[in-house]
Amino acid sequence: AQTTRIAVTPGDGIGPEVVAEAVRCLETLRTKHELALEWTRFPWPSHAWHEDHGVSWPEDALEQLQQYDAILLGALGDPGPIDDNSRYLLSDSVSLAPLLDMRKGFDQWVCERPARLLPGARQYLKDDRAKDIDMLVIRENSEGEYVGQGGRLRPGKPDEVATQMEVFTRRATERIIRYGFEQARQRAGERIQEGRTRSFRTLDGRSCESQVCVITKRNALRYWGDMYTEVFEEISQEFPDVATHHELVDAACMKFVQSPWAFDVVVASNLQGDILTDLAAVLSGGMGVAPSCNLNPTNPDMPSMFEPTHGSAPDIAGQGIADPTAMLFTTARMLDWLGRKDPVLAKAGKELFDAVAADLAANGGEQRATRQIGEAIRERLQA
Amino acid sequence: AQTTRIAVTPGDGIGPEVVAEAVRCLETLRTKHELALEWTRFPWPSHAWHEDHGVSWPEDALEQLQQYDAILLGALGDPGPIDDNSRYLLSDSVSLAPLLDMRKGFDQWVCERPARLLPGARQYLKDDRAKDIDMLVIRENSEGEYVGQGGRLRPGKPDEVATQMEVFTRRATERIIRYGFEQARQRAGERIQEGRTRSFRTLDGRSCESQVCVITKRNALRYWGDMYTEVFEEISQEFPDVATHHELVDAACMKFVQSPWAFDVVVASNLQGDILTDLAAVLSGGMGVAPSCNLNPTNPDMPSMFEPTHGSAPDIAGQGIADPTAMLFTTARMLDWLGRKDPVLAKAGKELFDAVAADLAANGGEQRATRQIGEAIRERLQA
Ligand SMILES: CC(C)[C@H](C(=O)O)[C@@H](O)C(=O)O
Ligand SMILES: CC(C)[C@H](C(=O)O)[C@@H](O)C(=O)O
Repeated sequence: AQTTRIAVTPGDGIGPEVVAEAVRCLETLRTKHELALEWTRFPWPSHAWHEDHGVSWPEDALEQLQQYDAILLGALGDPGPIDDNSRYLLSDSVSLAPLLDMRKGFDQWVCERPARLLPGARQYLKDDRAKDIDMLVIRENSEGEYVGQGGRLRPGKPDEVATQMEVFTRRATERIIRYGFEQARQRAGERIQEGRTRSFRTLDGRSCESQVCVITKRNALRYWGDMYTEVFEEISQEFPDVATHHELVDAACMKFVQSPWAFDVVVASNLQGDILTDLAAVLSGGMGVAPSCNLNPTNPDMPSMFEPTHGSAPDIAGQGIADPTAMLFTTARMLDWLGRKDPVLAKAGKELFDAVAADLAANGGEQRATRQIGEAIRERLQA
Repeated sequence: AQTTRIAVTPGDGIGPEVVAEAVRCLETLRTKHELALEWTRFPWPSHAWHEDHGVSWPEDALEQLQQYDAILLGALGDPGPIDDNSRYLLSDSVSLAPLLDMRKGFDQWVCERPARLLPGARQYLKDDRAKDIDMLVIRENSEGEYVGQGGRLRPGKPDEVATQMEVFTRRATERIIRYGFEQARQRAGERIQEGRTRSFRTLDGRSCESQVCVITKRNALRYWGDMYTEVFEEISQEFPDVATHHELVDAACMKFVQSPWAFDVVVASNLQGDILTDLAAVLSGGMGVAPSCNLNPTNPDMPSMFEPTHGSAPDIAGQGIADPTAMLFTTARMLDWLGRKDPVLAKAGKELFDAVAADLAANGGEQRATRQIGEAIRERLQA
C-alpha cells in the first residue's frame, strides 16, 4: 500500500505530553503490523511559536499540512502570563485561531464526537443513568455561528454595538443532515453485527433500529431553524428505516441529563454542537476520554484533523500527570478513518481502541502518570 | 397601600392547571394578610385564542397588560394536531411569540433564574454533587441572539442562505453585568444574615464572599465576546468585594455538571443563558421546581413577567397531574418582587416560598395530583 502520512501537531500545555504517548503507540503498532505509516512532528501551531514569531504558525502552514493524509493535534491555547492587575493577557481568540483555520481551510465540515460510557469511565449521573449512553453527536463544522462575520461599531464608546452574523446554507445543511442519517444507518448495522439492538419510535408509532435527532432553536432563531427543519423532513424521506426526532437546544441539554440513553445520532449546528458535545463528553466519562474528529468525507485531497475534546489544561501542563486516554481514543479513530484506504490501519485502530478501553476498564479512576498509562496500553498492544 | 394588580395569563397545556393552584394560594394569602392585591385572568395568549382568532392575542394585548403591576404566566406552546404524514403542524415560533413580545415590549431586560437544590428535590448527579448548588443565573433578556433579524434568501432552493444576526449593545451589556454584581453583593449580605458563608478566590489570591462568572464564547464569537470581557473588567472595578470569573459556554456546561457548587452569580447572553438555565434547572431538581422572572428593574411603568421555566407539556395536559411546584415558587418570587413597593407582599411571598419548600421537603418525589399538592401547600399557609 501507499504510505500514509500524518502531521503531528502537539500544540500547547498538556498537548505535547499526551501526543508523546500517542506517537509511542503508533510506533508499537507500526512495528507489529508493518504499517505503511509515517509521521512528521510540527512545532506549530503553538504558543511557543507565537512568542518567537509573533504568529501562531507560518504563512504556508495550511499548504504544508495539506501534504498529509491526516493531522493529529494535541491541544491549543495558553492564557499566557498574568499581568500586574492579575489578569490573563493572551486572548483565546489568538491562540485557538489555527483550529478554526484548519477546519475551514480543509473544509472539515463534519465534527464527529461519539459519547459512550465505557466501563471504568467516571460517571457523574446518579442511578446508573449514564450507563447506556451511546450517542454520536455530529456537529456542523463549516459555517453557521462560526463564520466570523460581524464587528464592533464605536468600540469602547457608550453607544457601542457589536454584531455577529450567523450564516447557514442549504447545501451545508443537507450534507450534514444526510451524513447524520448515513451514520445512523451504519451504527444500526454495526449493532446488529454485534448482537446488540436498540429501538426508537417514529411519530406514527413504527419502531426503528436507529434515530437521528436534529437540534435547533427554531422558536427563537427562526430563519435557519425553519430551514433545518425543512431539510431534515426532506432528507428523512430517503431513510424510512431511521426514526426522526427534534429537540430545541435548551431542552436537549436537559434531556442529555435526564434520559441520555434516548439519543442515537444527534445533528447540531456549529455552536449548538460545540455546547452539546462538551455536555455529552462530561456525561460519558469526562474530557479525559472524549475524542473529536474533524472530517472532510468528500474531498480526499484534504486532510482530516483529530484532536481530543479537552483543552490544553495549562494548570497541570509539564507535570506528566495529564490523562492521555482521550488522545489515544482519538488516535484510534484516526487510524479507523485512514483505514478506509488501507484496511490494515483500521485493524490497528480497532486494536488501539480495544487496548485503551481495556486499560480504562481495569484502571479507570486510579491516579497514574501520563507515561504509566501509555506504557500499560502499549503492553496490551504487544501482548 | 395602593392596590397591586396582577394579570394572570394561564396559556396552554398544563398552564391553566398549575395557574389555578397559584391563584388559590394567592386567595389564601390575600385573606390571611388582607393584602391589597387583585388579579384579572386573560384567555390569551394561547393556542385556543389562536384557533378562534387566527392570532395568539388581541392587537392591543401589550397595552392592556401594561395596566398591571405584574404578569403571572402559566406556559405557552402547543404543537397542534398531527398531519397525515404524522408530523406536527403548528410552528413553535407562532405559539411562543407572545413570550418574546412581552419581554421586548416591556423591556424586561433581566431574566433571573435561581437554581438551588432544595431538600426533597430530585437529584440527577451522583455523590451528592448537586447538594450545594446555589446559583443565580442572570440572562440578558433584551437583545443578543434574540433580536430576530435575518432572513432566508431563495427559500427552498438548493442555493438557499439563511442568516440570523446577533446584536449586542454596550449599554445593555453594562446594565446586565452591573445587575449581576449587585445581586452577588446582595446574596452575600443575605447569606451573612442567615449565618451561611461561601468563599470565592480572585485571580490574585484574595478571598471574596461572592462571585460573578460571566459567560461568553469569545474564542469563536469574538466581537461581542470581547466587548463583554471589557465591560466585565470595567464594572468589576466598582465591586472589589466580588470575585470575578469567566467561562466559555461549552466549558460552563461541563462545569455545571462537575462542580456546580463553584458558581454563585452567572451572567450570560440571551441564548447562552437560555441553554445554561435549562441545564441549571435540571441539575437542581428539574423543571418541576424551576422559576423564571423576566424583570424590568428600571422602569416602574412596565410590568415584570413571572413564569415557570417549564413548558406547556401538552402530553400530560388536562390530566390534573402536572406538578405546580415551579409555578408556586414563581408566584412567591413575584410577590417578593412586588414587595419592593408593598412590604407585606414580600412577607406573603416569603411565606409562600417556605410553604412550597416545606411541602417539597416532606413529599418531594411522591406521585400526587396537581390539586393535592396545591391543597397541601394551602394548608401550610393557613396553619
Ligand atoms: C477552541 C474552540 C474554538 C473550539 C470550538 O468552539 O469549536 C472548541 O471548543 C472545540 O469544541 O473544539
Ligand atoms: C419558548 C422560548 C422562546 C423561550 C426562550 O428561548 O427564551 C424559553 O425557552 C425560555 O427559556 O423562556
